[in-house]
Amino acid sequence: MSLDAILSRIDRELPQSLDRLLELLRIQSISTDPAFKADCDAAADWLVEDLLNLGVSAEKRPTPGHPMVVGHVEGNGPHLLFYGHYDVQPVDPLELWDTPPFEPALEDTPNGQVIRGRGSSDDKGQLMTFVEACRAWKAEKGTLPCKITFFFEGEEESGSPSLVPFMQENAAELTSDVALICDTGLFASKVPAITTMLRGLLGEDFTITGPTRDLHSGMYGGIAMNPIRVLNKILAGLHDETGAITLPGFYDDVPELPDEMRAQWQGLNFDHDSFLGDVGLKTPAGEQDRTPLEMIWSRPTCDVNGIWGGYTGDGFKTVLPSEASAKVSFRLVGQQDPDKIRVAFREYLESNLPEGFTVEYRVDKGAPASQMSIEDPAFEKARAALSDEWPNPAAYVGCGGSIPIAGYFKDLLGVDAMLIGFGKDDDQIHSPNEKYDLESFHKGIRSWARILDALSRDET
Amino acid sequence: MSLDAILSRIDRELPQSLDRLLELLRIQSISTDPAFKADCDAAADWLVEDLLNLGVSAEKRPTPGHPMVVGHVEGNGPHLLFYGHYDVQPVDPLELWDTPPFEPALEDTPNGQVIRGRGSSDDKGQLMTFVEACRAWKAEKGTLPCKITFFFEGEEESGSPSLVPFMQENAAELTSDVALICDTGLFASKVPAITTMLRGLLGEDFTITGPTRDLHSGMYGGIAMNPIRVLNKILAGLHDETGAITLPGFYDDVPELPDEMRAQWQGLNFDHDSFLGDVGLKTPAGEQDRTPLEMIWSRPTCDVNGIWGGYTGDGFKTVLPSEASAKVSFRLVGQQDPDKIRVAFREYLESNLPEGFTVEYRVDKGAPASQMSIEDPAFEKARAALSDEWPNPAAYVGCGGSIPIAGYFKDLLGVDAMLIGFGKDDDQIHSPNEKYDLESFHKGIRSWARILDALSRDET
Repeated sequence: MSLDAILSRIDRELPQSLDRLLELLRIQSISTDPAFKADCDAAADWLVEDLLNLGVSAEKRPTPGHPMVVGHVEGNGPHLLFYGHYDVQPVDPLELWDTPPFEPALEDTPNGQVIRGRGSSDDKGQLMTFVEACRAWKAEKGTLPCKITFFFEGEEESGSPSLVPFMQENAAELTSDVALICDTGLFASKVPAITTMLRGLLGEDFTITGPTRDLHSGMYGGIAMNPIRVLNKILAGLHDETGAITLPGFYDDVPELPDEMRAQWQGLNFDHDSFLGDVGLKTPAGEQDRTPLEMIWSRPTCDVNGIWGGYTGDGFKTVLPSEASAKVSFRLVGQQDPDKIRVAFREYLESNLPEGFTVEYRVDKGAPASQMSIEDPAFEKARAALSDEWPNPAAYVGCGGSIPIAGYFKDLLGVDAMLIGFGKDDDQIHSPNEKYDLESFHKGIRSWARILDALSRDET
Repeated sequence: MSLDAILSRIDRELPQSLDRLLELLRIQSISTDPAFKADCDAAADWLVEDLLNLGVSAEKRPTPGHPMVVGHVEGNGPHLLFYGHYDVQPVDPLELWDTPPFEPALEDTPNGQVIRGRGSSDDKGQLMTFVEACRAWKAEKGTLPCKITFFFEGEEESGSPSLVPFMQENAAELTSDVALICDTGLFASKVPAITTMLRGLLGEDFTITGPTRDLHSGMYGGIAMNPIRVLNKILAGLHDETGAITLPGFYDDVPELPDEMRAQWQGLNFDHDSFLGDVGLKTPAGEQDRTPLEMIWSRPTCDVNGIWGGYTGDGFKTVLPSEASAKVSFRLVGQQDPDKIRVAFREYLESNLPEGFTVEYRVDKGAPASQMSIEDPAFEKARAALSDEWPNPAAYVGCGGSIPIAGYFKDLLGVDAMLIGFGKDDDQIHSPNEKYDLESFHKGIRSWARILDALSRDET
């Protein structure tokens, strides 16, 4: 059977596939930092070139930020669109990396070989699983199995500012029968998953200012209100003693998990002790009356992602600073409206500012949560294909992170998105020493070949 | 009368005195930052050279940190010791300076001429008022009026780590009849003061660590406890709703202000509205049942001087960081024991760490409060001399800052210290755009000439 020939070719040509990925990983495409603008551009060029080699009519498409890469191949059967992102997270703190983040290499570990380097798992390695599956298919059969659109973004790690306008302007071109998104993970080692629930995100980045200048805490300490003290009180007040978030109305649009889903999740036997233990933690920190899987998949959260103020250098400076700053984000679920939560947060913050204090907000970042309609038969076909490749059946799962693209496909183009990926919990994405298991890369390519077969075979 | 001749010479030679100060201010003697070690050394060399020119047998004396400068002149009458420090505070945030911090210059302002630059008020300008008074005296009379020891430190802004050992090792040499310390301020414009109460200081610089690595808040948000959240809660809990500090036993050794002192302070008619208004604040932030002067002179405080954790760069990074850090300081009064407060703080902090979290402490900085015994007749003589120079009588006042040297003279050498200085509240010490009024410099030199006269004249 021809699928077997394709799978054999994937196995045989894995070293070449890996070389190509390492090449892409060497490009320092950090999208949040303007210093790496040229690198982001270079990553887009590299992908265009690679798709052209595959016979895809691909091009770099400008945006006000980093470019999109869009490519098409014509064909019969359903129109599939594949999305991935070529930008990566910043690498600080650099001193915690054991190897340079942009000098990727294959590494032996007690759990098998891994590809080490920034972007290996999030998302360049995952993006390339699909491209390599297409390459093997093309090499074996001379043509791809159906009409495919490739759609790669370079701003995912910085909030995708150009994505919605681009999708709106190019709606006809991007509207497909189903969107395949490779930016999620396995449920557990060797347990594949299709993610059907994604949390949304609201980010706030702000500075509160009290005194008009930095003060000497000897002269003013006691009488002058310290902005760091004000900030601490505001941030500490965001959670109550049970771990619940205190903003008025915050839980209004948070649905209870359907019993059926709750039962399926219980069947997954999630080992939260080792999930937390792997990163040195012990006690789940969320709402005390929720299960650990609910905490990370179906409940909203609030976290301070960064805080700074006053003197932070070596030694001591008894300063009472003029200002204090924080970056705060909320993971949203169900029908929670980012705009409504933002209003509630800002009202809470401003009502806690002492007289004369001011606040300045910097970014405005928000996306609602997404939920996929798994009634589309493509979902069951893909699940069966994944179950064929891996030693365990594939599960429908939730995801704590935000992948707003999934919602955009539904809302802007009316296209259902299937989130399938091969990352693992210990991939250290967004952290030093990011890695992607060689098994994830290899079986990821094979999985896409099987899914391409399943989705294209029965349709017409 | 010969004092008049000295005062006239001081007036006449003010331009030369100012030139010498500007030269000293150009030396970047930031003691907390190891990068400026050579600059600190250069400042010490400059002072040795200047004292030698004055006929003082001066030398640079090594310590494990920055050197001391010690000089002696023999003479009849009482033995006076003069203390000042040649090191200065760091200059960040540099972008808030209107002129480069180490390019000092005379500047016209609506309130008269000021000497602008780091260290102009704290403490090089103040230190030089005494040196210039001695210079004028020597030039006019050929000799200084009594035995004088000059003692200049280079680590005052970094907690004076070498001071106590140096004073202990050189106790005989430094023991004098009275110590004169020029590192404090006028009570108000044209109202001189002798500071008789100084708050102590306890500083803590620490990092709390939770997860063993930075986590992705999408994957771990909700279930993993965020160290910034823990830190916010700990720091927010240090004050209660009335502004009081919550550490158990914190107020045990805090004395009530004697009625007599309270009455004198009320007579000073402190205008806290304009004191706060000048720096953009409105409401006193201390304990609600205390007067503003108590808040800054006789009540203990707690302030966060620095806080940092997570991603603080441009853009947004949805990281759940491994650690969060803060620098916290307490201003101490009365008999509060820094060691006891440190224990109480650490017990409070550690009892609020979630299971599995750790804390690392970096510095260990503490000095108790000091109170001078104003029964020594030298205090009244100096007060009369100050009252002669200025349009208003001199006051005995408190000081919110810590000048541990005053306590060391008493405790280690049995010497009473007289704290007399000419700084003003708006000098912006420890802040960008530090300045020293030309009037403070000029009348400060004249004040010391009068005090030298008063203290040496009647003694034998």
